[in-house]
Formats: sequence, structure tokens, C-alpha cells
Amino acid sequence: MPDSRVNSWVDSAERIGADLHLELSGPGGRRAALTGALREAVRSGRLAPGARLPPYRSLAADLGVARNTVADAYAELVAEGWLTARQGSGTRVAERAEPLRPRARVPKKLPPRVRGTRHDLRQGTPDASAFPRAAWLASYRRALQQAPNEAFGPGDPAGRRELREALAEYLARARGVRTEPGRIVICSGFAHAVGLLFGGGVLRGPLAVEAYGLSFHRKLLTAAGVRTVPLPLDDDGARVDRLGRERAVLLTPAHQFPTGGPLHPERRAAVVDWARARDGVVLEDDYDGEFRYDRKPVGAVQGLDPERVIHIGSVSKSLSPALRLGWMVLPERYVDGVLAAKGDREAWASVLDQLSLADFLASGSYDRHVRRMRQRYRSRRDRLVAALAEHAPHIAVTGVAAGLHAVLRLPPGTERSAVKAAARHGIALDGLAGFRHPATDMEPREGLVVGYATPSEAEYGPALEALCRVLPG
Amino acid sequence: MPDSRVNSWVDSAERIGADLHLELSGPGGRRAALTGALREAVRSGRLAPGARLPPYRSLAADLGVARNTVADAYAELVAEGWLTARQGSGTRVAERAEPLRPRARVPKKLPPRVRGTRHDLRQGTPDASAFPRAAWLASYRRALQQAPNEAFGPGDPAGRRELREALAEYLARARGVRTEPGRIVICSGFAHAVGLLFGGGVLRGPLAVEAYGLSFHRKLLTAAGVRTVPLPLDDDGARVDRLGRERAVLLTPAHQFPTGGPLHPERRAAVVDWARARDGVVLEDDYDGEFRYDRKPVGAVQGLDPERVIHIGSVSKSLSPALRLGWMVLPERYVDGVLAAKGDREAWASVLDQLSLADFLASGSYDRHVRRMRQRYRSRRDRLVAALAEHAPHIAVTGVAAGLHAVLRLPPGTERSAVKAAARHGIALDGLAGFRHPATDMEPREGLVVGYATPSEAEYGPALEALCRVLPG
Repeated sequence: MPDSRVNSWVDSAERIGADLHLELSGPGGRRAALTGALREAVRSGRLAPGARLPPYRSLAADLGVARNTVADAYAELVAEGWLTARQGSGTRVAERAEPLRPRARVPKKLPPRVRGTRHDLRQGTPDASAFPRAAWLASYRRALQQAPNEAFGPGDPAGRRELREALAEYLARARGVRTEPGRIVICSGFAHAVGLLFGGGVLRGPLAVEAYGLSFHRKLLTAAGVRTVPLPLDDDGARVDRLGRERAVLLTPAHQFPTGGPLHPERRAAVVDWARARDGVVLEDDYDGEFRYDRKPVGAVQGLDPERVIHIGSVSKSLSPALRLGWMVLPERYVDGVLAAKGDREAWASVLDQLSLADFLASGSYDRHVRRMRQRYRSRRDRLVAALAEHAPHIAVTGVAAGLHAVLRLPPGTERSAVKAAARHGIALDGLAGFRHPATDMEPREGLVVGYATPSEAEYGPALEALCRVLPG
Repeated sequence: MPDSRVNSWVDSAERIGADLHLELSGPGGRRAALTGALREAVRSGRLAPGARLPPYRSLAADLGVARNTVADAYAELVAEGWLTARQGSGTRVAERAEPLRPRARVPKKLPPRVRGTRHDLRQGTPDASAFPRAAWLASYRRALQQAPNEAFGPGDPAGRRELREALAEYLARARGVRTEPGRIVICSGFAHAVGLLFGGGVLRGPLAVEAYGLSFHRKLLTAAGVRTVPLPLDDDGARVDRLGRERAVLLTPAHQFPTGGPLHPERRAAVVDWARARDGVVLEDDYDGEFRYDRKPVGAVQGLDPERVIHIGSVSKSLSPALRLGWMVLPERYVDGVLAAKGDREAWASVLDQLSLADFLASGSYDRHVRRMRQRYRSRRDRLVAALAEHAPHIAVTGVAAGLHAVLRLPPGTERSAVKAAARHGIALDGLAGFRHPATDMEPREGLVVGYATPSEAEYGPALEALCRVLPG
């Protein structure tokens, strides 16, 4: 079907117009066909009430008809009531036209919100009101203006070099990670990292995990066909001496999630020794490593042996989960496998956001933001501790002073009713039960997981007061 | 491990500092411990050559030591040659310190580039030099400034409502899609869509595909455990009458990829009839539907039956693959399944980019950009056709005047040598052979797939001249 006779409609079309797809196949002349096509587009709901139609000259050029033909068709449909024409706002679809019935969707996939929630103390997200909009926009502007043209073409599946360089510097300096840009792969966050590692065949299950952790992570792993084996926790963190025939273990060494303790230094060394002896690998989920408030920051386990630890991080806690940017710091032997799993080109993480984060890190904005948020969250944790000391002295805050959440230890048998009481008073938070691995045999712990970072500054005080009122006496 | 004694280091720390992770556990006093920790950080390569150290007061506050202690430690390491101090640029790691040996990585996962490529005519990407930086930045700024705080928290896995509304309006108007925001799910592009549909268990294989198509897509599907069954092509597009026991078929109806013909209207109707009769579904890959140059734009097949067609699109051809934004327009019965596959929260597409695209669409910038690029690509196609008519009149450009690529039909037995000859002359392009489904029994077609959108304006003329010189006589 050779076709070298290309019409000139594109050149003649006004650049200022908007596209409107119409097929002029009806009976009668061009005007009748156009009128019919427009009427059908409105009747079917394809053109929504209020939608603006293209200017005469633009649609006329697109369709290859005279401007008067379009003007006449519009006028006819205004007369029929399908369209409205008002001076200055052009021709629009009349409001009475009936659109496609909207789907009666129950948004059941969002994190369940307690009906009538007034105070959101669920763990997992930073203060959404504190996103550094101005500084981020400045980085985005610089990144967009300075990006080479090739940045807008197909992307390197490893991620932008600029970002991997900035991360290598930052993670070494702030988290004690030992790496270089060639061992870093950018991803969309923890879920993506797990998908690449296990879905991509780089690692295989079973995977040892902490007996308390995110059920979301367990679901991810199960969906990827990975069996998880729980390691019990004690006051020194995960019992890594219980590692059995697994070849991989997922840990939150800096701040056990959610119970809040760091992994004991001897166990940090022990788990690396285990990986060396068994040709195993440690997955280090460094989800909130930047937030430690007691002058005892713990570096990444990865620094102990970069060839035995996969360090996984993201900006979801430090900046916002809305950016969908994370990274894996890989032992050399896994790099090719992860890249193969990622595909020939970057198919996931926004390249423009990657360049912006590189600028945000390199310009010092990231450090400034983390330090500002550290003050804020630390102050919130202090206020939580002080409020409990005053109103509920029998309830202890467990774990180290770190992170975006705290666990309030509760007496046995009281957690479920405490969560329900909170919900009745409009407080959304979780109990520890939902984080417990179903197959663990460790003694259950009871407690409330309080995400003190979630509310805005203005909301936090009232949330804390409400919480103190409903705690079991 | 109750811990309510939180030190005040966060408050006292200078906000302007940068984080530096150090563990002062060595022997001797604080100064000796600090000196040792810094020396080790440099020696191990954790602090890279040229990296800037925090100011005295900032690190002193972070570590809870006197400023003089830090100053003394820095001075000692400067004296030892580990650090350098220069007025105005602070203290930095000396250049001689040896970093971790960079990985000798062969970037084999990027699309293979012909060694010595001077002219890139590979299909698949828009002109990277034409990204509308200013207009996109304006949309990003508005989106960032106007976003409600909740936009920086966990995202709806369906995607931002603002974007789904803008897409519903645009796709209806420009592509003849019949939908509403509740039936649209945002994703990172085609690969992600396929992953959600098949990996998430919403659809099952085998899947009928066109006998010529992207090998990348076939690989994706195979990796997701989906067997693909090729449908032969003729002058009217895919032979949908050959559909057998499959329950799903993937088509490029507007512009068959890569051979270039549209699906015949009777076959469009026939494949929808087939889906109705067999409880099947049509996956419509509308990868370049906006780019049609001959005044005969073809609307989406989806408009024929929104409950039998999954319409898949993205901005990868219209704006840039760097944004990683795409969408699925779903029959109602698949919406919940796709959302379940996506997870409890948005774990993939950048929420800020979603809001920017919503603004870009609603403000008319998207239409303006598409119309501008349509003129540009159409002119390039015209130049290709004209150049062939002059220099290689025996070689036909097949397919309709549309899209970002054209196929030059070659005589049997000449494709392979033509691709090699092009490579020898620094021209990167593909032959049709790489797009052929390995299991098809249709007569092979030979030709060159010329991605005329890929070069910049300045590069296109020379690329075209070079191409004409190497075409078989």
C-alpha cells in the first residue's frame, strides 16, 4: 500500500487548535455529516458537558472543510441545544448532555480509613504538609533546563548517572554505605526492588524475614512466589542465629520495623558472617535510617560487606512517597541480573524526577530538608513521650528515639480494644497484631503503632490529646 | 527497652550542616576517636576524593563534641594528607585518597548502538530535542504549587483523579475513546500495563498478537508466562478471522506496528464481534494514534465497545519516554482486578508528574505540542518520500502517512545486507526481520524500519542523505 501522496492538512491546520476526532461518514453533504458526528459525540458522552470545541478555522483545517461549514454545524447544534456559544468563551458542550454513567466505584484499594477519621496517626508516611515545594521546584527547574537532549530519549535501566553519583556520595557520607555509581540501580521504591530481585530471578526464596514487619511486604513476596520464614525478635533485634537453610534474609537493622529496636552490633556482624559462610545475602531495608534522634546513629550494615548486603532505600520517608524514587545498592554479582530484570530501557522511574533528585542531593537541599524534618519529628516524639508520662504513665514507649513512628507497649489482651476505642474517637492507627507474621511462634507483643509524622504540625497536638484520652487506664 | 531520655542533639545541630555518619568507638579520647573514624572513612573510599566535610560547628553538634575537637581532628588529617583545607571552599577529602574501584561495567542492557553511529534512525522515540521544556515546567510549577497536601502522602493506585479526568476528556475528544475517570488506571507505560494485566492475573494467555511487532513486547509477555500466538498480516491488517481459542488479542489498529497499515474498518468491527461472542477482550495499543498526516484519522477501536476493549496509551511517543506515564482505559469488569494488582497505594507512577500532565492536558499545552510535532514529523516523512523518489525510486514507502516511523519495502533477500551496509556507514536502523514473530507462517516481508522522528531537526537532513546513499540499487 505505497502512499506518497500526503495531504497538506497538517501544515494548513492552525497550531493553536485542539484535536477533535470526528468521522464524517454519515449521509448527506459535509455539513450534515459534521453535524451528525458532533451530535453523536455529545449524545454518547464522548464530549463531556462543558468541554470546549475547537475554533472554526482549526477544525475546518483539520477536516479539510470550509470554515463556514463548521460555523453552520456549530450554529445548528446550538439551536438544537447540544452546544452553547458565549462571547469570549467559545463554543462548548451544553451542560444538559448526559455523560457515560460514572462507575460506582468503592475505593476499596486505598489504605482503609476509619470512617469519620479526625486524627490520622497511621505509620508509614512523612508529614505531607512539609514537602519542600520551593526547594524541589528549584531543583526540578535546574534539572529540566540543564538536561542534555538525550535525557528525553530512552533511559538507561540503571538510572541516570547523575543520580547514581549523587547517591553514592550521599549514602557513603550519611549512612556509611560503601559503593560506587556502577553498583547502584534506581527503582520506584521497595516494592519494585523486591519485584526485580525475586520476580526477575536474581534471588530465590525462601526468604527469612523479621517476625514483625509490613504485611504489605509479605503480600508482595507471596505474589512473587517467595515463601517467607519468620525470625523471632528479642531485645537485641532479629534472632539471626535462627537462620536455617534460607539463602537470603530481609532485615530493618537501623530501626526494626515496627517494634523499634536496632539490631545489636554483634548480630550485625553475625548476619554478615552467616552470609559469607552460606553464600547468602542480606537485604537491608533502610527505610528511615536518616531519622535518629539520640546521637547514636547506626550506619548501614552494607558497610560491613558490600558484596554480601543489598542496601535498599527510597525518598518515601525522607521526602514523599509521591515521588516514587528508590534505589538498590548491589553487590557486583547481582548488577547484571537486576538490569536484565529491569529491561532494555528505563520503563519505570521518571527520568526528570531522577535528575531533580540528583540536583536536590548535590545542592545540599536534601541534607537541609532531612535535618529540618529530624527536628520536627524528634520534637513530636518528645511530645508523645511527655504526654504519656503525664496522662498514661503506665504505658511505655518502646524502641530507640528514631524514625517516624513509635510503639506504645500495651498490657496483654488490651490491644484490640484499644484500637477499637481509638477508632470510635476518630483516631486512625494500627495495633501490632497486623504486623505479625502468621507463621511465627514468638510470644505475641501487644501495642499501638503511632505514626507521629503523619499529621501536619497543626493537627498533631489535637491528635495527641485525643490519643491520651482513649488509652487504656 | 523504654527510652524517654532523648538528647537534644537534633535541636542544637545547625540546620545548615550536612549529615556525616561516624562511629566514635575507637580507643583514646573523643578527638582520637573522631580522627580515626574520619581517616577510616577516607581510606575505605566511603568519603570520596573531593567530598566536602561538614563545618566544625555542625559536625560538633551532631556528635556532641566541642567544636575545637572537630577542628583539631580536621587539622590533624590535613597534616596527614587525608584532607585539604582551602579558604572559602571548606575542608575536603584530598584527591589522592583511593576510592572503591569502579565497576568495569559493560552497559550491555542499553539498546545496542552500532559502533560509530553517526545517524540514529532507530524507531521508537520522539525527537528528544523537541521536548517542550518551558511549557512542561510551567505545568509542573502550577501542579506543585496547587497540589493539596494529601498529594504528598500515599497515592491512589488508580492514579490522580485530576489526571484521569483530563485524560477522559482528551481521549474522548481526540481519539474517540468512550470512558470516564473511574475506568482509567494510570501506569508507567506499556510494559507496566502488560505486567498488571497478565502478571496480576486479570487476564490469562494465550494471547493472539500481530505476526510483526516489538520483540520487546513478546519478551515481556513470555516473562509474564504468557504464550503469544501470531496472527498473519495482509493489506487490511491483522487477520482477525484467524483468531482461534485465545481469549485476548493485542492489536495496533490505528497504525500497525511496524508495517504501517491501519486495521480495515470491517476487521475493526469483526474483532469486537469476536470479543463479544467469545467473552474475549481486545488490547488496543494506541502507541502513536495522535500522529496521522493524511486527514483520515482513525478513532480508537475502544469507541466501538468500551466493555470489550482495553485501550492502552502513554506519553512516550507524544512527549517523551523519560516521563514514564501511561494509562489503561478499562472495561468495568477489569478495574478492580487491575487495582488489586497495583497494590494498596500508588507504588509506581510519580504523583507530581501525574499532576503536571493533568495540567499540561487541561491547559491545552498537550494539544499544542502534538500539533507542532505532527507538522514536524509529517514534514520529515514528506522529505523521506521525496528523497526516495529522487534517489531510489524503486523503493516504496509502505503504510499510511502516520506515526514516527516508515517502512521501506525491499526486494527479497536484500534486507540483511542493507542493514549491514547502513551500519557500516554509521546509520543505526532496524530491518523488519527483528520484528517478526518466530512462530508465524506468513510470508516474510523485507524492509527497513526508519525512525524519522528520532534525530533532531539539524541531524535529520544528513541522516536522510546518508540513508539514500546506502540503499540497495
